[in-house]
Amino acid sequence: MKKVWKRLLTVVVVVAIVATSVFITGRQDSDAVAVTAKNVKAAASVERAPKYVFLFIGDGMSYPQIQAASYYLGAVSQSSGTTILKGGKDLSFMEFPVSGSATTFDSSSFCPDSSSSATSIATGHKTYSAVVNMDETKTISYETISEKLKKQLGYKIGIISSVNINHATPAAFYAHQVSRNNYYGIGKEMVTSGFDYFAGGALKEPTGAKKDQTSIYDLAKEAGYHVITTEKVAEALTQKDGKSIIIGETLADSDSLSYEKDRKDSEWALADYVKKGIEVLTNDTGFFMMVEGGKIDWAGHANDAGSSISDTVALSDAVKEAVAFYDKHPQETLILVTGDHETGGLTIGYAGTNYDTYLKNLQNQKISYAKFDADYVAGYKKNNTPFSEVLVDIKNNFGLMTSEDKDAAQNEKLVLTDYELSLLKNAYTKTMLSTGEQLTQGEYILYSSYEPLTVTITHLLNNKSGISFSSYSHTGLPVGVFAKGVGQDMFVGYYDNTDIYNNLAGLLNVK
Amino acid sequence: MKKVWKRLLTVVVVVAIVATSVFITGRQDSDAVAVTAKNVKAAASVERAPKYVFLFIGDGMSYPQIQAASYYLGAVSQSSGTTILKGGKDLSFMEFPVSGSATTFDSSSFCPDSSSSATSIATGHKTYSAVVNMDETKTISYETISEKLKKQLGYKIGIISSVNINHATPAAFYAHQVSRNNYYGIGKEMVTSGFDYFAGGALKEPTGAKKDQTSIYDLAKEAGYHVITTEKVAEALTQKDGKSIIIGETLADSDSLSYEKDRKDSEWALADYVKKGIEVLTNDTGFFMMVEGGKIDWAGHANDAGSSISDTVALSDAVKEAVAFYDKHPQETLILVTGDHETGGLTIGYAGTNYDTYLKNLQNQKISYAKFDADYVAGYKKNNTPFSEVLVDIKNNFGLMTSEDKDAAQNEKLVLTDYELSLLKNAYTKTMLSTGEQLTQGEYILYSSYEPLTVTITHLLNNKSGISFSSYSHTGLPVGVFAKGVGQDMFVGYYDNTDIYNNLAGLLNVK
Repeated sequence: MKKVWKRLLTVVVVVAIVATSVFITGRQDSDAVAVTAKNVKAAASVERAPKYVFLFIGDGMSYPQIQAASYYLGAVSQSSGTTILKGGKDLSFMEFPVSGSATTFDSSSFCPDSSSSATSIATGHKTYSAVVNMDETKTISYETISEKLKKQLGYKIGIISSVNINHATPAAFYAHQVSRNNYYGIGKEMVTSGFDYFAGGALKEPTGAKKDQTSIYDLAKEAGYHVITTEKVAEALTQKDGKSIIIGETLADSDSLSYEKDRKDSEWALADYVKKGIEVLTNDTGFFMMVEGGKIDWAGHANDAGSSISDTVALSDAVKEAVAFYDKHPQETLILVTGDHETGGLTIGYAGTNYDTYLKNLQNQKISYAKFDADYVAGYKKNNTPFSEVLVDIKNNFGLMTSEDKDAAQNEKLVLTDYELSLLKNAYTKTMLSTGEQLTQGEYILYSSYEPLTVTITHLLNNKSGISFSSYSHTGLPVGVFAKGVGQDMFVGYYDNTDIYNNLAGLLNVK
Repeated sequence: MKKVWKRLLTVVVVVAIVATSVFITGRQDSDAVAVTAKNVKAAASVERAPKYVFLFIGDGMSYPQIQAASYYLGAVSQSSGTTILKGGKDLSFMEFPVSGSATTFDSSSFCPDSSSSATSIATGHKTYSAVVNMDETKTISYETISEKLKKQLGYKIGIISSVNINHATPAAFYAHQVSRNNYYGIGKEMVTSGFDYFAGGALKEPTGAKKDQTSIYDLAKEAGYHVITTEKVAEALTQKDGKSIIIGETLADSDSLSYEKDRKDSEWALADYVKKGIEVLTNDTGFFMMVEGGKIDWAGHANDAGSSISDTVALSDAVKEAVAFYDKHPQETLILVTGDHETGGLTIGYAGTNYDTYLKNLQNQKISYAKFDADYVAGYKKNNTPFSEVLVDIKNNFGLMTSEDKDAAQNEKLVLTDYELSLLKNAYTKTMLSTGEQLTQGEYILYSSYEPLTVTITHLLNNKSGISFSSYSHTGLPVGVFAKGVGQDMFVGYYDNTDIYNNLAGLLNVK
């Protein structure tokens, strides 16, 4: 809160200095406390607080994920043979007029958890890792921005996630639990929230951890929700149908939506859920829509750069739907895009490639690590598949090949060195022969809890592309905060993630 | 340039919508092209373009370096026993009202060079790595912002660097060379620049690569420069003494100034060179001062987190001198703080420590990697010092110890595991027995061109602190751009580093 007060002081001074007749109307005028120096311009140029608010959260998405995706798009679009590098292609939100930075630490660590960091964004409070909208004593519940907007202003609320809709980040907008792992309790709060639109991956543990409870889906139906599980029905959904929950028709790892890399053209993208959300939520009072790109984080944990990039692009595409809406309602819309924390310590660069990157190599990755685990590695273990056959699949799915491959001469940058081949062979052996014994410290750094073969494949492809990761967990990097629309200037600067809430609540005048 | 035009279009629209009578005065009014939407407020609230411009460049400093320094300061200030983490301590420039982000790629790579990235900041042009202010054909020279300000507006110019004052970054503000390695040629351009104040590390190759040329120092004296090499004389320097070159009295690795970690209290800090610069440059027409924190980069290359943090704090302290000046001249001063690129792929987090960090461990590092090389490792090689004796120095200088150490029980987080001790032993052997043979691919990733023993010590201390690096080179992360003062709002957003020049030149109305 310190910064907010400092800004308030500044606004008084600035207003006095500027001495232009700024007439702040609408909700703004009744509560000056949260008006900062930075929103003087916004207040002057708009008639009221934003009626339509989009908050996109790329889970595990910070500057490295954004810039890697942008540079990848630039690399693949650059015609071969040109000798002057032309840079990246902007993601949709990189073009926003405002970008600030937010620190993400929580009460436990500089490398925070998704539930605590989303708590900060949704309520303006820090808490311990794994806690959802409760204080450090785990006794006080915090009301979220979405609950306040519904209760105090009558906004319609939409919550979308590419992972489970009772996962940590979406939960932080409607639930209050001592642990993010209370999936059933979170699911019950989803039903009682009365929010208007939920969409994304299926509920985790819908009948409780012991599978002995009434299904959350049944509770939701009793509470008047339309629970939709096919895209055909989802397509037909209109605002007249009332409150709805859309679960993805095609579910992937842990019942989440597919990685963008694995998504079939016919399958709904994250953008489609946003588009439908806009359709069912638009109303004269206003709406608040939180959209999580949740699998950027999962790809980061697994050190799968290719999937991180494609899911970051999918989030950018989803933001484009909001921008199209903004273009129709520029005086009433605010779009925010941020991350909750960085995941994986992704670096555009690698010790082994020095100043060079070969991002085009990543084009050869056809499948996410998770789908490769499911569709290939499970079979290898069952059938004791020899390494030579595995190498064929690796080439087809990731492009990597040995020096003896017939295509090796034409694909120099994808040919494994003896050293790299030995790492791959060791990982294959570990995957095939593992009896669940504890990893040594050296093995843990190489594989963590991932399938040794698969994580080594993505490590090798990353490294040969000039990309690397240094962690399997969240890290302490600040995140970008991109803003476009009414009140955008409140998000300028380097601040704490609790100020995302503080500024948003101030702008919307909820208490 | 694309973005500038887009912004120009926006400004026209915004001005029309706002319909307030913004009267742009001073230099601003004669050249509307570079006026962006973002500087409408700046133009409205100030009478003229900034008279005093500070540009601080942390070489190799991006978000990871800044946040690691901030969190380190937070960690060491948190009293032990408290169970709620309180976050970081802001560096001076993190408190600035504006922070944007800038992409740093050059015409060669997404992981750019310091000379090309400084060329972009100083001239608004991209070029190949290693080139200083010339185009990709290496035939056309670009005039720099500092040269333009001197020639067109009569500003006094100061160039300060903690590394050699003819190193890539300072060179990019006065020299034009096909290669950053033309140190003698750069030195000659330094003399002919006629700039008013140079300060920092000694010239590299002052008598040429073959040591057969007239000393640059002699050329400088002939051209009327006071060449000062003691702090006593530097202290007495006043504006009346005319053009001056101050070379640090105490020189460290490669004739640069000391790492902040190694600096004695009596020795001038980077802040002292800035303070003296303000003293000799302040005048009624204006000044431009570029200040490079050059050893943040060198520490990044060497993966020395402790030295990176202390040199980042030293840059923050130097910025405080500019802020004190700003406080006296708020209507006439602009302070910019940025980086040229990230170095090392620094991550706040590490695969081996998951979500935990132990940043307080870094307090035990008493010496930079470079001084440890010079003061200890050189002796080990000469005297064939046994590993057991080396371990004593490692404990004294970095805090790391074996499980048999008498202090092990009280310093659990600094005790080397068997795995870590084996890495250290291997590195010791490599350092002691190396006959200059080429490293294997695996060894290169472990040590690069650094002393195996020393780089392994910093890797181990970093990792046990929850910090890691993934490269020995520059990486592709965008950098932060922090702005405070007249025209600050022009630096909002996510843009290319060439726009730092474009916005600055537009604001100052130089062509």
